[in-house]
Amino acid sequence: MFRSHTCGALRLSDVNSKVTLAGWVQTVRKFGSISFVDLRDRYGITQLLFAESLQSLLDDQPLGREFVLQVTGTVTERSNKNPQMPTGDVEIAVEKFIILNKSITPPFTIQDDTDGGDDLRMKYRFLDLRRPAVKKNLTLRYEVGRSARNYLHEQQFMDIETPFLIKSTPEGARDFVVPSRMNPGQFYALPQSPQTFKQLLMVSGYDRYYQIVKCFRDEDLRADRQPEFTQIDCEMCFVEQEDILMMFEGLLRRIFKDVKGIDYTETIQRMSWEEAMWTYGNDKPDIRFEMKLCNLKFPSHAFPGKSSMEARISDAGFKVFDDAETVIAFAVPGCSEYTRKQTDELTEWVKRPQIGMNGMVFIKCNADGSFKSSIDKFYEPQKLEAIATAVNAKAGDLILILAGNEEKTRKAISDLRLYMGQQLGLRKVDEFKLLWVLDFPLFEYAEEGNRWVARHHPFTSPHPADIEKMIGNSPEIRNPSEYLKHPYAQIKANAYDMVLNGNEIGGGSIRIFQKELQQKMFAALGMDEAEQQNKFGFLLGAFEYGAPPHGGIAFGFDRLCAILGGSESIRDFIAFPKNNSGRDMMIDAPSGIDQQQFDELQIKLNLKNQ
Amino acid sequence: MFRSHTCGALRLSDVNSKVTLAGWVQTVRKFGSISFVDLRDRYGITQLLFAESLQSLLDDQPLGREFVLQVTGTVTERSNKNPQMPTGDVEIAVEKFIILNKSITPPFTIQDDTDGGDDLRMKYRFLDLRRPAVKKNLTLRYEVGRSARNYLHEQQFMDIETPFLIKSTPEGARDFVVPSRMNPGQFYALPQSPQTFKQLLMVSGYDRYYQIVKCFRDEDLRADRQPEFTQIDCEMCFVEQEDILMMFEGLLRRIFKDVKGIDYTETIQRMSWEEAMWTYGNDKPDIRFEMKLCNLKFPSHAFPGKSSMEARISDAGFKVFDDAETVIAFAVPGCSEYTRKQTDELTEWVKRPQIGMNGMVFIKCNADGSFKSSIDKFYEPQKLEAIATAVNAKAGDLILILAGNEEKTRKAISDLRLYMGQQLGLRKVDEFKLLWVLDFPLFEYAEEGNRWVARHHPFTSPHPADIEKMIGNSPEIRNPSEYLKHPYAQIKANAYDMVLNGNEIGGGSIRIFQKELQQKMFAALGMDEAEQQNKFGFLLGAFEYGAPPHGGIAFGFDRLCAILGGSESIRDFIAFPKNNSGRDMMIDAPSGIDQQQFDELQIKLNLKNQ
Repeated sequence: MFRSHTCGALRLSDVNSKVTLAGWVQTVRKFGSISFVDLRDRYGITQLLFAESLQSLLDDQPLGREFVLQVTGTVTERSNKNPQMPTGDVEIAVEKFIILNKSITPPFTIQDDTDGGDDLRMKYRFLDLRRPAVKKNLTLRYEVGRSARNYLHEQQFMDIETPFLIKSTPEGARDFVVPSRMNPGQFYALPQSPQTFKQLLMVSGYDRYYQIVKCFRDEDLRADRQPEFTQIDCEMCFVEQEDILMMFEGLLRRIFKDVKGIDYTETIQRMSWEEAMWTYGNDKPDIRFEMKLCNLKFPSHAFPGKSSMEARISDAGFKVFDDAETVIAFAVPGCSEYTRKQTDELTEWVKRPQIGMNGMVFIKCNADGSFKSSIDKFYEPQKLEAIATAVNAKAGDLILILAGNEEKTRKAISDLRLYMGQQLGLRKVDEFKLLWVLDFPLFEYAEEGNRWVARHHPFTSPHPADIEKMIGNSPEIRNPSEYLKHPYAQIKANAYDMVLNGNEIGGGSIRIFQKELQQKMFAALGMDEAEQQNKFGFLLGAFEYGAPPHGGIAFGFDRLCAILGGSESIRDFIAFPKNNSGRDMMIDAPSGIDQQQFDELQIKLNLKNQ
Repeated sequence: MFRSHTCGALRLSDVNSKVTLAGWVQTVRKFGSISFVDLRDRYGITQLLFAESLQSLLDDQPLGREFVLQVTGTVTERSNKNPQMPTGDVEIAVEKFIILNKSITPPFTIQDDTDGGDDLRMKYRFLDLRRPAVKKNLTLRYEVGRSARNYLHEQQFMDIETPFLIKSTPEGARDFVVPSRMNPGQFYALPQSPQTFKQLLMVSGYDRYYQIVKCFRDEDLRADRQPEFTQIDCEMCFVEQEDILMMFEGLLRRIFKDVKGIDYTETIQRMSWEEAMWTYGNDKPDIRFEMKLCNLKFPSHAFPGKSSMEARISDAGFKVFDDAETVIAFAVPGCSEYTRKQTDELTEWVKRPQIGMNGMVFIKCNADGSFKSSIDKFYEPQKLEAIATAVNAKAGDLILILAGNEEKTRKAISDLRLYMGQQLGLRKVDEFKLLWVLDFPLFEYAEEGNRWVARHHPFTSPHPADIEKMIGNSPEIRNPSEYLKHPYAQIKANAYDMVLNGNEIGGGSIRIFQKELQQKMFAALGMDEAEQQNKFGFLLGAFEYGAPPHGGIAFGFDRLCAILGGSESIRDFIAFPKNNSGRDMMIDAPSGIDQQQFDELQIKLNLKNQ
């Protein structure tokens, strides 16, 4: 061992001990004829004192930042203590030192506030990983994993490994494929998730399965996606939805306790998908703050159970509202005194291409009870007051209203609500609000092909009450324009998403476990029998031999860690992430391969642009 | 929840409780007007009693093997208790039952001694996994993993995930590659091990890393190899060989304790590679039994430090020994009374193509002190006695001798020793003997290319005492026939293998951490600077920024579990293994992919046989 203690271990009680430390030189400070060196390792920093007698040796072998150093010396009490550091009461009076390795000057400073840009830090990720901020993130990641494993172990889940070289069944996301040398012309696929394998383990009677496992999706990478990502993947036998919700609320409570020291004892809210869309404009609402939406006008087919407030805005000759499919408002508390500049800026914000609205309407609910709006020309004060009442705005609030096509407007108002929450400091990184979103539609309509696609995946069971509706009706859509009237559009999935602070951190479902229903589902998605057999014959086969009722959930491990760490970026919580082109900048992958590899795999390139 | 208790939970203390169980029908036994059903789940088996009143219902819905059944009833004391089963004191007086799912007749019986052949069981792996023997194996696997994680956690190791989509650097084994759609013409490789990443984590100061991680090798599969396999992969900073040995002896002792209930307190033996080859004929000796080899004759260049016993066998006119490069013997205790048939069978055994010897010599050391051998014609009793003394044979032993070319003979005698150990029952599955093999040669000579290849991998450090020998000499081999005289042939690696019962279960090394030495190593393996930079530029770069001394080890998790489970086959300890052609028989992978996938990846097939 190159050390007797780590750089985080020594305290006042160790004074007079002879110790050996090894670590990295964080700083060198020379004061006249003595030098102080901060020596760093994973566990902390310890101050070293090089007395006058060592100076000529030090002059011969000068220390630089990031040098690897081994020192032997005596622990002494510091005259000038540093209460910020656990080791701040002591220093080492160095007697002997060995430079174990040198370092050239790093391309950026190894500090939380580094001067290195993103590309530079990714290229030198091994240096970036030395920064305390990144170390803290990876440590948190380890703690989350450890906590999850301990909880699941106590709940009798078994970690069972599923294969990585599986079969390509491209629907939904694109597979990464792997040519098989031993089976020329054939390919493995890397798993997008262990879905079918974990279901087979339930058929095999393993009862409770989990795995913290890499999954792969060959998608065009958005800002915060990675081609390889990690899931906490779980499945249980003989359960209904309620059992799963309770079990995994327990998992999250345990993680909060173990990792953040938070007793998350409050009831975890539940909300239907329809309610989430209606009240927050999206299916993963951030409920750390209110500002609920008020639907002043909406297409009745989208929310058949809701009643319209259209009367409050119609008959005013305001063409923007009259022509719009959907008008949605919400009240921003205490912002009635926004200046013209501020409201203009909000209007510009919603007109950005990412949001894409043509404009924004606002109503100031003044403290004195009067109203001032951008639509005063069309709406008298009484009418504005009626709208304010509907929106549940109080004196001092600012009402923001967007109008337009249903889908775009709902997304835009949802984004605007989140933006205002951010502006007002209502999205605190150290406040955590969990939410279950339930009762998703089982199917989504795809215009391309005039067909149904699975909203979750083809193994999700319909709600028990809707199974008859699915079995008793044909999936065929005779009138595309009225697809919402098709019985399939009304079928709810026995599925659930867990949302944390406006991010989907997990999702799952009770699965289909009857062969006939699974076949009906495949058929509904447009798979004929041959295709069903080719792609999922093993699963249909397994369902013939006593498949039990089962269900499960998968958590996005990277995202969960990022949110717990107070970050929006998963990349900061992955040791060796890829950039938005799927490249590992450090090792420079992907890259070309040898001709021998092409020959052995019996494939060749077929580049379009050559 | 479909159940109030599992099928392994109920005891006498539960009598009179109303319970609901769910599980699989193991057996149905009808006695007159009542029926007994054994209901099975992961946790056990509980006996159900269907009274006369339920018979007509049962007649309407007959139960079959592997049906999924839910029953509600009252726990009652059995009149006919079964002490073999934890639940054997009770049964359930069924009041209500629901068939949750049916099963067609399984293609083989779900029992330890199944009637299913290998192919059938692999195709229906989801049924094979139901067999108690397989469940026990996967449970043991989970326990080994859990035990390892707990130990490593307590020793401050952090589980850090390394990437799966990395760079192809084919040397040693072949890489599996993954075409990149976003970077046409380029490929990722799947990792053969996280070697360079774990070293970078040490450079980054993570100090103690571990991962239980899938690795991939595209090799022609021998009987007990899998294209994807799992390692317990570990690395530590600021350590020397002794630190690693102690740390991982601790890991194994912990696993023995946690998983097998064995206090493995005895000292773990250590042996140099040379000693292992000399005494056991291979580098992973099974030391559960003696029968050490006696080298009667050997080429001096292979074991330069050993002295020859050739005089004992020469000058007898026995051409087989006189012409042989190597003659090796060992004594089989208590087998001097083997019949002619038995010695003939042994001779046939060594003549099989897998062993490939031309014959075998034996000497019977009779109980009365006389000798009888297959070479009596050439050797007088005194000469036979001299050999017996050399071999350390006692009266009653049978000496077996093989002669021939060094490499083949040594391997053959090693195999013969293991075979005799097996025959004599000396290789007990419930006896465990750990062994460290040390001081491997750093390089192996490759005739093809007249060059050096790394015996372990290119990141293994030479023994501290041999570093000068490596730096001070050129790798060039001027005289291929005398390569053993080259200084590089004498360099020992700072590497270690852990051997359990004759199987290598782990191996590792102290790594090179100096850029110049690493470059020297790459050059010794025939990589020019451009190739070094292209393949390992990131590692050489990292070594410039303060790389600490470090080392590590990786355990073959599948094999470790198999040996602990008393099996030679890793396949029995993998949930979804592949066959010897790398196929998953159940999901039928690998398989063809769509034209769209080829187009998107910009590759095409280039089949030789078309």
